[in-house]
Formats: sequence, C-alpha cells, structure tokens
Amino acid sequence: MCEANAYLRKDGREELFLENVDRVIPQEDGLLLEDIFGRRKMIKARIVELALVDHRIILEKMEKEE
Amino acid sequence: MCEANAYLRKDGREELFLENVDRVIPQEDGLLLEDIFGRRKMIKARIVELALVDHRIILEKMEKEE
Repeated sequence: MCEANAYLRKDGREELFLENVDRVIPQEDGLLLEDIFGRRKMIKARIVELALVDHRIILEKMEKEE
Repeated sequence: MCEANAYLRKDGREELFLENVDRVIPQEDGLLLEDIFGRRKMIKARIVELALVDHRIILEKMEKEE
C-alpha cells in the first residue's frame, strides 16, 4: 500500500508524527491526518513537502499565523 | 511505486492535472508539483485532500486569496 509517514520538522530535525498515513485533509486551523486503520490526528501544522515515492510527508507547526 | 495523480477540483468535477506525482512542495503563491520523471508544474492552487492509498491528490485553484 502507498501510505506514508508524517514527520514534524522542527529546528532542522524531523520527528515522526504519524505512521501509515492514508488521508490528509487541510482544515481551517490545521491538518486532519488519518492512517490506514482509520485513526485520526489533528495538528496545527502545514505541509512543507510531500515525497510520495519516499513515503514521506513533512509538516511544520504553525506558530505565527496571521 | 507510490506516486499519485493530481486532480483539479472545479464545480464538483475533477480533472487530471498531473500524473505520477512524486513531490508536492507548497510555495508562497501556489504549489510546485514534480512527477517521477522530474517534470515540474506550478499551479496557483491549494491541497484539498490527499488520499494516498487511492493515489489521489485533490487540488483547488486559489481564486480569492487575501
């Protein structure tokens, strides 16, 4: 299957936020992520990069939103 | 490989924008998409939904940006 892992980029490092992500749905105040088991996680973050062949979703927290 | 196809949603319909997408990199004024062959396409759009298991990236044009 073609799920990906979502990582949170912080100070140049990446920490795993959620594995086996199937869906990512941007919302007004962040992102809704759903893994292949239907587990959902919300995060106030934005997508920095998708690299699908590498199964990677890179996120970054929204700290200073207007 | 786990590339996806990017579709542009418009008036409830979806039209294919780019096949075999590997990377998506949000920029200030839109999205940069790169397919598995290294071909790049820019679009003034935002991500509406990723459905990775279905190999789908749904985009929507940014018409009214502040």
